[in-house]
Amino acid sequence: MSFKNKLGAAQDCIGVQIDNALSAFPESQIRNAMRYCLEGGKRVRGFMVIESAAVFGLRGSGPDRAGAAVECLHAYSLAHDDLPCMDDDDFRRGKPSLHKAFNETVAVLTGDALQCTAFWLLAGEETSADPQIRSELVFTLATASGADGMVLGQCRDLEVQAAHAELTEDEVMSLHAKKTGALLSWSVQAGAILAGEDPTPMRVYGDAIGLAYQIVDDLLDADQPGSEDASILHALGVEGARAAAANKIDEACDALGPYGDKAAILRELAQFVVERQL
Amino acid sequence: MSFKNKLGAAQDCIGVQIDNALSAFPESQIRNAMRYCLEGGKRVRGFMVIESAAVFGLRGSGPDRAGAAVECLHAYSLAHDDLPCMDDDDFRRGKPSLHKAFNETVAVLTGDALQCTAFWLLAGEETSADPQIRSELVFTLATASGADGMVLGQCRDLEVQAAHAELTEDEVMSLHAKKTGALLSWSVQAGAILAGEDPTPMRVYGDAIGLAYQIVDDLLDADQPGSEDASILHALGVEGARAAAANKIDEACDALGPYGDKAAILRELAQFVVERQL
Repeated sequence: MSFKNKLGAAQDCIGVQIDNALSAFPESQIRNAMRYCLEGGKRVRGFMVIESAAVFGLRGSGPDRAGAAVECLHAYSLAHDDLPCMDDDDFRRGKPSLHKAFNETVAVLTGDALQCTAFWLLAGEETSADPQIRSELVFTLATASGADGMVLGQCRDLEVQAAHAELTEDEVMSLHAKKTGALLSWSVQAGAILAGEDPTPMRVYGDAIGLAYQIVDDLLDADQPGSEDASILHALGVEGARAAAANKIDEACDALGPYGDKAAILRELAQFVVERQL
Repeated sequence: MSFKNKLGAAQDCIGVQIDNALSAFPESQIRNAMRYCLEGGKRVRGFMVIESAAVFGLRGSGPDRAGAAVECLHAYSLAHDDLPCMDDDDFRRGKPSLHKAFNETVAVLTGDALQCTAFWLLAGEETSADPQIRSELVFTLATASGADGMVLGQCRDLEVQAAHAELTEDEVMSLHAKKTGALLSWSVQAGAILAGEDPTPMRVYGDAIGLAYQIVDDLLDADQPGSEDASILHALGVEGARAAAANKIDEACDALGPYGDKAAILRELAQFVVERQL
């Protein structure tokens, strides 16, 4: 199956698990808003969960649910990021952002409900028969998304923007490692955790992919008029940033060595990240 | 030890676990804001966790951490409730609310980080040596706080207020069972879950306490000028509400029958709820 077909299949599996999760909650405005907020994502993080589990021969509802969980977590962060007091974005995923389609109150509460749905999915028995694995998924996702992970990175980024501070290359990389990298890296580690295997090689791969993703994001932003402050470019310059992204992709692929051909799709994923086909 | 002394001791134990959790995160604005937001609470929910575990002879860092977890969850809900787009409250726990002391952006992100800290605490190995228990704590707290629990109740309450709708007694009770009851009820069930015991009697007790708590809240609000719409009183009248609260306390205490004298403190807690000493 081609890479694009595999991504499409993963999107379908994640969609099924999202529908299952939502149907466990009563019909309500909050459930409608959760569904709206989850629609239309590319499911890159969920795909990473599913394909990293497949490296260990694990497929099915466990990885699909964990993939849906990280998509709920990601969707909550987008809903809150778009709020007027945050980035104040009116559009998301090609349609009005959540607070525009509903209102700010609903957007805050929907983000809150999506966050706990992520942990609800991971802790549910259908995710793994082994409760140690479920606990570890919850603990590691909570670590990746909280005050030493994504939220820390978001908060630091806003502080830097408010202060118009110039960061060194190391500071920029460290900020983005938290802001976007932690969740991407968790997504590939989740496959190893689900399989009861050591997640270390996946962590090295995921950390490198996360930084490459952010560098490419900044390079693309630099071509857009009215783009946000592209701070990696400030630190590295365009050529330096391109070289850094290529380096990170090499580093990511090297980390997959122990898995041999089983990790072919993750190597393709690394290329797609840098070529920005995703 | 008197009830007040037991509450004070629980507050201290929860404070230790909150400090431990915060010290696991790097020094940052978000950590300072989390600390600010957690300060000054009465820790009723955490106390419920600790005392319900004590009914089964279980004391120590497990119940203390689970108590700290529900306090993180509760603190996040207050921080988001106080936002300008929600209840727009300038004060909380006797000091400026989080968005007043910091700003709205930090208040949104701090709430987000506090929510995942709750699940991080529950899933951590120090909470219980048994991963099945840790998973169950996460799953049940996520259920109690999300789109079929607290957030559902918050969202419905705001819809009712916006529509100036008049609810029946059943509708009011059902709304509050979600909005405030689910988290209070989880708090006493958590003790049974930690001990590996059937949480059913604790659920009956907790559900009843949760409703009594809300009814007393509305009765007290009715004495305050400029109070919010006290919807239980609309449905029941003052005398009806007083009788309903007393009924719920009886129901709560009856549910504790199987535990005999071991549940003496929980019976006292029921009285304190209705006499509003807490």
